[in-house]
Amino acid sequence: MNRSDLFHLIQKKKSFLCVGLDSDLNKIPKHLLHTEDPVFEFNKQIIEATLPYAVAYKPNLAFYESRGIKGLVSLEKTMNYLDGFKEEVFTIADAKRGDIGNTSTQYAVSVFDKKASGFSFDAITVAPYMGEDSVKPFLAFPGKWAIVLALTSNKGSDDFQLFKDENDSRLFERVLERTCKWGTVDNMMFVVGATKAEMLEGIRKIVPGHFLLVPGVGAQGGDLNAVAKFGLNDHCGLLVNASRSILFASDGTDFVEKAALEAQSIQKDMEAILLKNNLI
Amino acid sequence: MNRSDLFHLIQKKKSFLCVGLDSDLNKIPKHLLHTEDPVFEFNKQIIEATLPYAVAYKPNLAFYESRGIKGLVSLEKTMNYLDGFKEEVFTIADAKRGDIGNTSTQYAVSVFDKKASGFSFDAITVAPYMGEDSVKPFLAFPGKWAIVLALTSNKGSDDFQLFKDENDSRLFERVLERTCKWGTVDNMMFVVGATKAEMLEGIRKIVPGHFLLVPGVGAQGGDLNAVAKFGLNDHCGLLVNASRSILFASDGTDFVEKAALEAQSIQKDMEAILLKNNLI
Repeated sequence: MNRSDLFHLIQKKKSFLCVGLDSDLNKIPKHLLHTEDPVFEFNKQIIEATLPYAVAYKPNLAFYESRGIKGLVSLEKTMNYLDGFKEEVFTIADAKRGDIGNTSTQYAVSVFDKKASGFSFDAITVAPYMGEDSVKPFLAFPGKWAIVLALTSNKGSDDFQLFKDENDSRLFERVLERTCKWGTVDNMMFVVGATKAEMLEGIRKIVPGHFLLVPGVGAQGGDLNAVAKFGLNDHCGLLVNASRSILFASDGTDFVEKAALEAQSIQKDMEAILLKNNLI
Repeated sequence: MNRSDLFHLIQKKKSFLCVGLDSDLNKIPKHLLHTEDPVFEFNKQIIEATLPYAVAYKPNLAFYESRGIKGLVSLEKTMNYLDGFKEEVFTIADAKRGDIGNTSTQYAVSVFDKKASGFSFDAITVAPYMGEDSVKPFLAFPGKWAIVLALTSNKGSDDFQLFKDENDSRLFERVLERTCKWGTVDNMMFVVGATKAEMLEGIRKIVPGHFLLVPGVGAQGGDLNAVAKFGLNDHCGLLVNASRSILFASDGTDFVEKAALEAQSIQKDMEAILLKNNLI
């Protein structure tokens, strides 16, 4: 899927919602615990319920790896299920990987090369600390995307990302400036936290054409309208992620309906935003 | 294992060698491909051969994840095998993880909590880009260590790690200065590449007491004596990693002997260094 395909998908679904599958076994509804693979069952029902409202799904790999091999089995089943909707969803491995070149290549294989690893995500999140040769291997897979951390939504983002050089340029700005030259608008996005929405204005000056993956709306307190105001571009250019507010909208037997309602509510807001900005 | 235990282990083995288990299925000797689990078989024989000469083993998770669930099975068997030598080896999950707090906790569980994930490494490598709340969850597990990336051995380390602020302080120095306050010398180390040995002198001024994990000796071209000259402290304070030069010393049926010889050769150099510096 390239940038244009993704924009068409957004126009078709009138949504730029990404559902984060941070599927914590300790938080899913208790009645699912009696099924053979509760996390997969939960994901399947969440996906079914939210598919009309979401353009992307983003499993957070930590929540699967923390269950070891069993967790990987749940993730593989989830991704095989999502493979049935290849044309209508974009999939992101939220993994924050990055290492020296030959190791990054192995990480890329782990999420992109189904024959080798069993997984064929469209994209992976990448940590930029180790620089060019740690990021580029993820860009060597045709049709696949690297989504590089720029400015994250957590409190600790202040520690290093806002580190200023002698020209008042901050680390996340340097990351954007350098990294965007290593790929294209068709294989690279950036993570920008919704809790820093006002900073999107400056970010759009550095990367006007790229898609941004924006976590932090919902449980983390980010504001969708502020994100849209400063972040939209002529291809929409935003994937806004919500995880906990959808997944755990209810912990009872009505979790499917509640998740659908929450996703639909966000989609309606997004539709209004897309209309107002003449993007649909 | 705390800092003192690790130093005693180094004194006992007269070695501060860490063997990196970057066990690439495409590079292991062909005669192993007929065994049930070639990567595990390779690791087991490499460990048996190098155990007298190494104090630590560091599986590079990318090389297991790239084979999906099968790779995780090989890794689990390898770690179960290493569990049989708990008192004489320190184990490191080379994973370069780091995410918002609740996600980092899940990553910590994935490598530290055997009951949940099947894995009980002593340490994990951590990427610092997301700051304090992304690093601290790894420090919440008693007896376990976070090994934070400071200055890496690859070419791309120049892109961001050497980013200077208005006082000529570089990003990796800021990472060391801030991060070392979040943990102690008993639960935190730093990654410093051997290819930047001359910079160890300055690094030791910031973190005199911490252990440093030093990759880049061997295939990447780093020099052991230079690393020792600038990096040793009164607890040794160094774990020097070699991967490819040991693992792939031969691709024939003599790979075990060749790996042992290579590890022994490094150990002998280390013994001389430890003696010269009155550390044994």
